[in-house]
Amino acid sequence: MPVYYQGKMLELILTDISGGGLSLHADRGAILAVEASVQADSAAILACVLLSLVVIYCASKAGGELANRFGFPPVLGELVGGLVVGVSGLGWLAFPDSIDPTATFPIAQLVQQTGGISPEQARQAYIVGSEVIALLSELGVIVLLFEIGLESDLRELLKVGPQALTVAVVGVIVPFAAGTAGLMLIFQLPTLPAVFAGAALTATSIGITSKVMSELGQLNSVEGKIVLGAAVADDVLGIVVLAVVASLVKTGEIDVTNILILIASATAFLVGAVLCGRVFNKTFVAVTSLFKTRGGVVIPAFIFAFLMAFIGAAIHLEAILGSFAAGLVLDETDKRKELDAQIKPIADVLVPIFFVTVGARTDLSVLNPVNPATREGMTIALFLVVVAILGKVVTGLAVFGQDKVNRLAIGLGMIPRGEVGLVFAGVGSASGVLSPALNTATILMVIATTFLAPPLLQYAFPRKAVEAAETPG
Amino acid sequence: MPVYYQGKMLELILTDISGGGLSLHADRGAILAVEASVQADSAAILACVLLSLVVIYCASKAGGELANRFGFPPVLGELVGGLVVGVSGLGWLAFPDSIDPTATFPIAQLVQQTGGISPEQARQAYIVGSEVIALLSELGVIVLLFEIGLESDLRELLKVGPQALTVAVVGVIVPFAAGTAGLMLIFQLPTLPAVFAGAALTATSIGITSKVMSELGQLNSVEGKIVLGAAVADDVLGIVVLAVVASLVKTGEIDVTNILILIASATAFLVGAVLCGRVFNKTFVAVTSLFKTRGGVVIPAFIFAFLMAFIGAAIHLEAILGSFAAGLVLDETDKRKELDAQIKPIADVLVPIFFVTVGARTDLSVLNPVNPATREGMTIALFLVVVAILGKVVTGLAVFGQDKVNRLAIGLGMIPRGEVGLVFAGVGSASGVLSPALNTATILMVIATTFLAPPLLQYAFPRKAVEAAETPG
Repeated sequence: MPVYYQGKMLELILTDISGGGLSLHADRGAILAVEASVQADSAAILACVLLSLVVIYCASKAGGELANRFGFPPVLGELVGGLVVGVSGLGWLAFPDSIDPTATFPIAQLVQQTGGISPEQARQAYIVGSEVIALLSELGVIVLLFEIGLESDLRELLKVGPQALTVAVVGVIVPFAAGTAGLMLIFQLPTLPAVFAGAALTATSIGITSKVMSELGQLNSVEGKIVLGAAVADDVLGIVVLAVVASLVKTGEIDVTNILILIASATAFLVGAVLCGRVFNKTFVAVTSLFKTRGGVVIPAFIFAFLMAFIGAAIHLEAILGSFAAGLVLDETDKRKELDAQIKPIADVLVPIFFVTVGARTDLSVLNPVNPATREGMTIALFLVVVAILGKVVTGLAVFGQDKVNRLAIGLGMIPRGEVGLVFAGVGSASGVLSPALNTATILMVIATTFLAPPLLQYAFPRKAVEAAETPG
Repeated sequence: MPVYYQGKMLELILTDISGGGLSLHADRGAILAVEASVQADSAAILACVLLSLVVIYCASKAGGELANRFGFPPVLGELVGGLVVGVSGLGWLAFPDSIDPTATFPIAQLVQQTGGISPEQARQAYIVGSEVIALLSELGVIVLLFEIGLESDLRELLKVGPQALTVAVVGVIVPFAAGTAGLMLIFQLPTLPAVFAGAALTATSIGITSKVMSELGQLNSVEGKIVLGAAVADDVLGIVVLAVVASLVKTGEIDVTNILILIASATAFLVGAVLCGRVFNKTFVAVTSLFKTRGGVVIPAFIFAFLMAFIGAAIHLEAILGSFAAGLVLDETDKRKELDAQIKPIADVLVPIFFVTVGARTDLSVLNPVNPATREGMTIALFLVVVAILGKVVTGLAVFGQDKVNRLAIGLGMIPRGEVGLVFAGVGSASGVLSPALNTATILMVIATTFLAPPLLQYAFPRKAVEAAETPG
């Protein structure tokens, strides 16, 4: 019976009692009300989180296994599973950014009935719980990228560095140019909105891409390394592009100083992490060798990964770039195998929260044909999806010095926009640059590329290495 | 760049801008403010959680390793590590129940400086983050009890059932009777407060006790089984005692129907879990054998554990009793070894959050001698601590039919009151039954027993099996 909200709740409830009849329990007298409510708040939040996790895990396992049965990457099933239980489906999961204060939530109702608390208390508990789930999903993608870093070999990644950088740059320029030009010429849109929507086409979701490559057993193939390297570079480029278009929209000019600082700090972070990593490696092994209690390897590894994630976020890059760099560094230590084995089950329980959440947040109501913005947006969306796919597929052609490389697979690997594309849509829509129709079209483009990438990649790669990667564990 | 608070934040920020000058960024124009703030809120909460986890992991590793070096159970070091970084020490961790709205939080300040956000935004992010940490610590103790259940053998536990039940019942009656009588006769307290404080003496913290036994490699010794069984029984008895004294304080009478329903549902839950478990075992193995994707065993196990935890909480028992029962049931399956190996690293990263949090929440300001309630409470506290220890130590004498059993170790194993004792203090103080002095005394008793139990147990058990249990992993 931990009383986590003890102090706070006690105050609240005592006010209820003295105010008379505010709480469900107030008329039953002081003590039992206090007792029930002290437990209710803490217990209700916990109950909401536990039920949400049960829903997430059921959706991920059902979706992942079904997808695998039909020959698709499991992560597609997890995304679709999230879609089924999320805001576009059963509505069992809701998120802080989309909670409708008048809606009823099945999980909150169940917790209310079993907990003997008021509907308002249950709703409050559910909202706090949804913040916790959102955070767990962020920790999930941080741990995913840490694991991908551990699975990747820095030296091998650097070998294909020039190719990866070319793929990333082509994958930014082509979709941006084609998208912006098309929107201006075909759809007669003004320059600024066209530039903004074009910029949204440049993103690549490193989470989706790396997970699919890992599931296909392709993370250490030439194609896999190029795509992973390009996705990392694209992530940095995407942040730069966002800063460029944001300053363009704001002042009509590009804030060169700001952009240069951003590029310099990003480069310094990635190069610095790798260089410091060589020194830190030995410290890490020396320190963990001294430890004799449980978690002697995994806890120091998490301290490093979370600290790098924090620094990555603090210098306006991304948390996941930090944990990826941490994984790359620790992959070079003698503790690698031990760490690999221990991160796996932790990733198994955290990573699905991220993918189910991505699916559950996907709001298909933008497809509603009754909405005028949708009808107007549909043709633009179709155009954006085509440019989004073709603009990334051509990046495969830019790979040089590799004869037998699977260029289609590389291009397809760069397709998913995922959560990165949604940031552009969010910023664009909030600033008023994107009209509702163009905003809807951008979101549809993100949804389509995210869900299409896993099956397309599956098609481009032979099935050979898949079985090995799918051993339960 | 996941935009988790996207919708919500965008609205807030747009209001800021139109309101003019409310946000730090408002004077710098629209777009960059929107961009910074969209990222700030989501990124700031994540940054707070990441830094809090880094602090928790550093405290747990430093404390655990030092304790081990000096021959104490690592969990004592984690508790003390929490004390150092928590509300009584450096103040790096704070909790929703004790957040002082005027205080400054080092983590919030760091996030504010690195994130370029306003102090108010940083504070908000920190408060949301502290809710997330509190929830993670609750998940930590749920996973701990799940792991303890997996490490325990139900048949073996049932064998010592009668002894465990005797220990639990004696451990409730003796401290309660001695505490209540002493408070009335020596300290001349009225009946009701004496009964309430006496009731707080009956608790046993199953989390602290089971973790120490596990660290000492004693979970499957006769003593360990008796203490674990008794701690489970005591948990149920403690909930019944709380209900009894609460209804006594409220109406002056005991609500027999309510109490009987509580006892019946608790018994039905524990017996039902074990009986249904025998059927569910086979289903679990059959279902998990079909799974071919990652997390094929651990995800179904977590679904079961979290569902049982929810049911445990829903019938007004405890979440940890549910996950413990789930662990006991799954220990009987063929998947046991695989599951054991996979739960270990997950427990390694989640469980320390619980123990560091227990330490970090401990508020030693109740020891302040300038406070009149403390001076008055100190002698009562001394009396309560003595009764709390002796009242549980005598339970070892109640063990029958076991000749060579270590009776002292059993008695000492029942000592820690932990978070369970704090519930009594919280309810008692909120209802006005406990005076400030008596409340302080109760809290001091809880702190003393929680921190004394690990070294006392270490002393009572020979060091033999300790090394094996401490292999890093």
